[in-house]
Amino acid sequence: MDVFFKIEYENNLMRVGKIITDHGVIETPNFVPVATLGSIKALDSVSVKNLGIQAIFCNTYHLHLQPTEDVIYYFGGLHKFMNYSGVILTDSGGFQAFSLGQALVDRVGKIANIFPNESKFNYHFKKSRKILQDKLALMDKDGILFKSHLDGKIFKLTPEDSIDIQLKLGSDILLTLDECTSPLASYEYTKESTIRSFYWTKRSYEYFIKNKNNFKDYRRFLYGIVQGGYYYDLRKWSLENVLSLDFDGYAIGGSLGRSKEDLYEILSWLSFPKNKPRHLLGIGTINEIFVAIEHGIDTFDCIIPTRYARTGTVFTKYEDNYKNNFTLDLTAAVYKGKDVKKYDLPIDENCSCYTCKNYSVAYLNHLFNANEISAMTLLTIHNLYFYNELLKNIRLSIINKNYDKFKKDFFA
Amino acid sequence: MDVFFKIEYENNLMRVGKIITDHGVIETPNFVPVATLGSIKALDSVSVKNLGIQAIFCNTYHLHLQPTEDVIYYFGGLHKFMNYSGVILTDSGGFQAFSLGQALVDRVGKIANIFPNESKFNYHFKKSRKILQDKLALMDKDGILFKSHLDGKIFKLTPEDSIDIQLKLGSDILLTLDECTSPLASYEYTKESTIRSFYWTKRSYEYFIKNKNNFKDYRRFLYGIVQGGYYYDLRKWSLENVLSLDFDGYAIGGSLGRSKEDLYEILSWLSFPKNKPRHLLGIGTINEIFVAIEHGIDTFDCIIPTRYARTGTVFTKYEDNYKNNFTLDLTAAVYKGKDVKKYDLPIDENCSCYTCKNYSVAYLNHLFNANEISAMTLLTIHNLYFYNELLKNIRLSIINKNYDKFKKDFFA
Repeated sequence: MDVFFKIEYENNLMRVGKIITDHGVIETPNFVPVATLGSIKALDSVSVKNLGIQAIFCNTYHLHLQPTEDVIYYFGGLHKFMNYSGVILTDSGGFQAFSLGQALVDRVGKIANIFPNESKFNYHFKKSRKILQDKLALMDKDGILFKSHLDGKIFKLTPEDSIDIQLKLGSDILLTLDECTSPLASYEYTKESTIRSFYWTKRSYEYFIKNKNNFKDYRRFLYGIVQGGYYYDLRKWSLENVLSLDFDGYAIGGSLGRSKEDLYEILSWLSFPKNKPRHLLGIGTINEIFVAIEHGIDTFDCIIPTRYARTGTVFTKYEDNYKNNFTLDLTAAVYKGKDVKKYDLPIDENCSCYTCKNYSVAYLNHLFNANEISAMTLLTIHNLYFYNELLKNIRLSIINKNYDKFKKDFFA
Repeated sequence: MDVFFKIEYENNLMRVGKIITDHGVIETPNFVPVATLGSIKALDSVSVKNLGIQAIFCNTYHLHLQPTEDVIYYFGGLHKFMNYSGVILTDSGGFQAFSLGQALVDRVGKIANIFPNESKFNYHFKKSRKILQDKLALMDKDGILFKSHLDGKIFKLTPEDSIDIQLKLGSDILLTLDECTSPLASYEYTKESTIRSFYWTKRSYEYFIKNKNNFKDYRRFLYGIVQGGYYYDLRKWSLENVLSLDFDGYAIGGSLGRSKEDLYEILSWLSFPKNKPRHLLGIGTINEIFVAIEHGIDTFDCIIPTRYARTGTVFTKYEDNYKNNFTLDLTAAVYKGKDVKKYDLPIDENCSCYTCKNYSVAYLNHLFNANEISAMTLLTIHNLYFYNELLKNIRLSIINKNYDKFKKDFFA
């Protein structure tokens, strides 16, 4: 069998390698942007590919509701349907057990402080909250009971359902069904959930092994998800059990604590076999990405660069804006004050993205404040380019053995 | 002085020519898409240029409110601000005297039957109507009194203001201030308005002649607008007066009647000097474009291809869909019935646009129904490409003396 993952350079826990699928290679470490409904929001598939994005992350829950896995299967699977020729990963639907469940009650993201204020929370969940105030997802032993955020229809997602849907969607890399626990969950609840998640993980694995050969057009790979929240013994228990099955790779899911420091601690507890890739789910900010890579993570997915773009926030490396996680708010008034001439410049004069090559901050600000759709597209292009270049430079710095200097300069 | 307009081929009233500005040439007859706020909605300027769009139509009223003509002037004018290197025309603000004025009361567009039902009307005017139910524009002898649809601020637009704003915006082709009358206006009102509009047109002309030489970077041209609604003697009176001034070109504005037939009749009344270009304001549908060209119109602007795109309607030339003005609603359910396989095809297999080269109807339908922003961009690209190709083919058919056959085949 052809190799799926190979490591080319190592430096302490960090590694530079290649995940090799029948839809192309992911150079690792790498960032995988989120294409929830089979589309990176505000960007068409060919533009995504042309940006140099090697892999995208689609969502089982959302695609099951619309247009449904049967429609996508009928039209030849996600790659053909979307006309995207890179690697496709799919979430199992387990994250929505959280985001449409306890997250609505606790008003938190995967890391407790991700929504520091009510208005941000309301922005992120406004669609779900329009329909009802309470949970849209409940767990039982067999799977997740969802109430569709679109039409209120109740449906169940078992581990077998999740794998079935993902196989029909035609993703290259599938994930086992799990529950993503809230960062505010108690030890008792997290323990119960971690045990249940592994039970689902095992059922996902068995069902995948039995059925993957029905799909002979290209290889499908399955990652097992390690849960356990912010509890050392539960993470260890989950890891040990997941490692007992022959997965193609591993994912780290669930609550990653109440702060960034908790995330780092959780990562330091987990030690994986070297020869398989590791994906960190739902991460992250620039800071988190550096730390994840230092802990040997190969890939991570997150809505941050794309969602930030659609709310007018771009990533740049200016002066001391690392304090602000390298973000700049383009919706602020830029036409006042003595520095106005500088807004005639692009977001970043050193950036080679389409947006920076063609448009000034002043124009982007105008487009955004005039609610022009193209503003979202242009900022999405910039933010994805920024993440992609950063990851490329991190890989190079590991290969060239100057990661520490690169990081120091980046945060300077 | 360099030539502004030259005719290269003639066939009865139809002509193929070139409008030559310092920002490039418009091959005529041609369609000018609308970029109200300095942006073709859902498309960035470089993509607009790459689509082969030779000219765009921006709006004085909207740009005066945001980001203001002073900001645009400060950043080097519209071409530089937008990074658009084609020809820019600007409306005088006169259309908003109608669209924010009597149109809100009469619930009509430029042609009375343009909004056949209440729901379409509400869609088109929802922004204005959110703020207040009554008029946002009133006329007096000196100009138009507007109430901003954004913040309710009252401001006046005189003929001199309108030219001043357009000069600062930096458009290549400016329009004189006028009132666009409602198709439901009485003879008495239309007469009063037509006389006032010519008074404004004259003031616009005099102010333009006095001030245009303050802008030496490139040539600015002014078109005089013929008004008069659907009244023969008023149109004739307006035409005669407009022709008495030395404009660079002419525009036909105001109400174009209560039906398409009225439009054709109005056009047949008007006879212009051959050597200057003629622009028909706010037109139109495919049918209207053919007839306008047959009456010797050189350019026309309209929101139809772009607004239709954003509501999920595309232009195609299928079977007998000329009955439907060559439109196809992409938001309809396409996954049902025995014909489902055909939705795996592009909107039009013979179309060479980016959207048709890359995406199926099934995927576009999914993107649209999932509220993905990229759907609007992709449909906008297709519709503008369709209009652009149509106009190119009409020009060729006039040059090749087979316009009648081309038209017959097109409607077959």
